[in-house]
Amino acid sequence: MTNTVSTHIQLASRPVGWPTTGDFATVKVELGPLGPGQVRVVNEFMSVDPYMRGRMSAAKSYTAPFAVGETMTGGAIGRVVESASDAIPVGAVVLHQFGWRDVVQEDAAGFKIVPELPGVPLSLYLGVLGMTGFTGYVGLTAIAGMKAGDTVFISGAAGAVGTAAGQIARLLGAGRVIGSAGSDEKVALLTEKYGYDAAFNYKSGPVRELLATAAPEGIDVFFDNVGGDHLEAALAAFNPGGRGALCGAISSYNATERKAGPDNMGNMITRGLTLKGFTLGSYLDLAPEFNEHMTKWFTDGDIAFDETVVDGVENAVDAFLGMMAGANTGKMVVRTAVNGVPIA
Amino acid sequence: MTNTVSTHIQLASRPVGWPTTGDFATVKVELGPLGPGQVRVVNEFMSVDPYMRGRMSAAKSYTAPFAVGETMTGGAIGRVVESASDAIPVGAVVLHQFGWRDVVQEDAAGFKIVPELPGVPLSLYLGVLGMTGFTGYVGLTAIAGMKAGDTVFISGAAGAVGTAAGQIARLLGAGRVIGSAGSDEKVALLTEKYGYDAAFNYKSGPVRELLATAAPEGIDVFFDNVGGDHLEAALAAFNPGGRGALCGAISSYNATERKAGPDNMGNMITRGLTLKGFTLGSYLDLAPEFNEHMTKWFTDGDIAFDETVVDGVENAVDAFLGMMAGANTGKMVVRTAVNGVPIA
Repeated sequence: MTNTVSTHIQLASRPVGWPTTGDFATVKVELGPLGPGQVRVVNEFMSVDPYMRGRMSAAKSYTAPFAVGETMTGGAIGRVVESASDAIPVGAVVLHQFGWRDVVQEDAAGFKIVPELPGVPLSLYLGVLGMTGFTGYVGLTAIAGMKAGDTVFISGAAGAVGTAAGQIARLLGAGRVIGSAGSDEKVALLTEKYGYDAAFNYKSGPVRELLATAAPEGIDVFFDNVGGDHLEAALAAFNPGGRGALCGAISSYNATERKAGPDNMGNMITRGLTLKGFTLGSYLDLAPEFNEHMTKWFTDGDIAFDETVVDGVENAVDAFLGMMAGANTGKMVVRTAVNGVPIA
Repeated sequence: MTNTVSTHIQLASRPVGWPTTGDFATVKVELGPLGPGQVRVVNEFMSVDPYMRGRMSAAKSYTAPFAVGETMTGGAIGRVVESASDAIPVGAVVLHQFGWRDVVQEDAAGFKIVPELPGVPLSLYLGVLGMTGFTGYVGLTAIAGMKAGDTVFISGAAGAVGTAAGQIARLLGAGRVIGSAGSDEKVALLTEKYGYDAAFNYKSGPVRELLATAAPEGIDVFFDNVGGDHLEAALAAFNPGGRGALCGAISSYNATERKAGPDNMGNMITRGLTLKGFTLGSYLDLAPEFNEHMTKWFTDGDIAFDETVVDGVENAVDAFLGMMAGANTGKMVVRTAVNGVPIA
C-alpha cells in the first residue's frame, strides 16, 4: 500500500473580494485501506478555473458552495495505483472531480476512464480536449448559434476557454474572429498563434472604442468570459440579430460591490439581440459531438494550445490566484505528480 | 370630391428628453384629385405608441427616424371614401401606416382591407386585435418560449401590450401571471378585470422587493415593456432557465443621459437565463397563427380590453404625451373621424 498520505487544499474562510492565501489551508490526510469498490488515484494534474471563485462564496448558485473547513473539489486527471473495483483497473487514466489534492481514494463510480491518445499530455484533458474546449464549443454552437461567415468577438480570448473558442469559431467557418486580452504579448499570440483576425489589449483604452475599431462592420456573435465593459461594448457593436453567449464574468468575480450593468440594454430591442447565459451542466448531451469534432481537429494538427503549469498541489492556491489575475496564457493547470509520484 | 383638406401632425423639431407640444406642428394639406390607382381614406382612428418616441430622435434604428418638417406616420384605420383602384372599393375598411393625419390619399398598395367583425369597434384593430395583441403573442411564444405552467411577469401590464399579453399568457396556460403598473387603480384592474394572479404598483417601493413578494417562487418568463429597474428585478427573480422577451423600455425613452443597466447580469450565467429583444418586423409570418387564436378568444368573450380615446387629430400630440406618461389604461387611440366626418 503506497500513497497513503494525501495533501489537501481546504477552504479556511470565505474570501471577501480578492481571495488571499490566508483563506486556504493545506492539510495532510491519512488514507485508510481501500473499501470495497474503491480506487486510489494519484492525480497528475488538477484544474483551476474562474468558476471556482463563485463556489468560495456562500451564495447558492448552480453548484453548491465549497464548505469552510473542507477540501475543495474540481476537475483533475490521474492514474489508478490501487483498485478494489472490477470496473477500473490499476494503471487506468481517469478524469474526475476530486481536485485540490494529490491522492484521492473514492468509489470507482466517481471516475471516468480516459482513452489516452498517444503522445498527448494528460493535462490537455482538463483543457482544450476537455471541459475547457467543450465550453467554447457549446457557447458558439448551442448558445450563440454561430453560422458560417459570422463575425465573432471573444473576450478574454487568451485564456483557456478563449484560446479554444477562437479556434473552434474559425474551424466552424466564422468569417472573422476578434479577441481581447489583457496584455500586448497575449494580443500578439492571438493573431500569430491562434488565428484571430484582429485582437486588442483591453487595458489600452475604452473597450467600446477598441472593439469598434477592430470590428468596423459590427459583430454577429459575442462569446463573453469577462462581462462588465466588454458586454457593454458588444451591445454597442452588435449587428441586428446578434447573439451573445455569456460564459463568464471574471471582471466581477472579486468585486465586493455589485457594479452597474451595460447602459445600452435598449439595443437588445432595436436590434433584436439575444443574450444567453450558460453553464455546461445542461449541455452534456453535446459531449459526443464535441469529442468527435475536437479529436479530428486535434489529430489533424489544427488546434494550438498553451498551458501555464504550476508544480505541486501546495502551490494550487497561487495558481488559482494567478489565473484570476490573468497571469496565465491558455489553460492554467497544477501538476500534482510526476511519473506517479506526488510533488508535494 | 369631398375631404380634400387633410390635417397633418408634423415633427417640427427633435425632442430633447420629454417631447413638448412645441416639437410638433399642425398643418392643413390640400389634396388634389386622385391619381391612377390611388384611394382616399378618412381615418377613423390612429395609434400612438411608445416606439414612436424613438423615431422622433435622429438615431438610426430598426425604423427610419421621422423627418423634421414632415408628417409623421403610424398605424391607423379608416374607410375608403373615393377610389381610383380596382383593388380597394369605396366603403372598404382599411388598415395602414398613414397615421398622424385625418384624411390620407395614397396608392392602394399601402392599404390592407380589414374583414370587419360585426359590432367590433374599428379601434380594436389597432389594439388587441392588431399589432398590440400581436406583440404580446409574439413576445410570449416566439421570443420567450412560454410553456404551460410557467410563472410570467409582465411589466407595464396595464398598458396596451401589457393588458393583451397578460390575457394571452393565461389563455396559453401560464401557471401564474404577475403584473406591474404605475397606479393602485391600474393594479386593481389587472387582478379584477384582466385575470392577473398578482400585481403591484411599481411606484410604491423598490421593484426588486415588490416582485420578490409577488413571486415568492420566482418567475420563468418576463415580458418587459419598461426596462431599467424592472429588468434588474426580473434578473433577480428568474428561476433557472428563465427567459425574458424585451419588448419596450419606456422608462428610458425620454432620458437625456444613458442610465446604467442591471447590476446583476451575472445571474444570466449562473441561472442559464436568456434575454431576447424583438420588434415585430421579423415575426410577421406568425400573424396568421395569431389571428386564428385571437379571433377565437375574442369571439368566445375571453378577451377584456380598455381603450383611452382622445378625440381629434389635433389632439394627437396630447394623446401621445399622455400615453408616454402613463395616462392611459389599455390602448391609447386618437379618434379622428365620427361617421366618416373628420373631427378636426
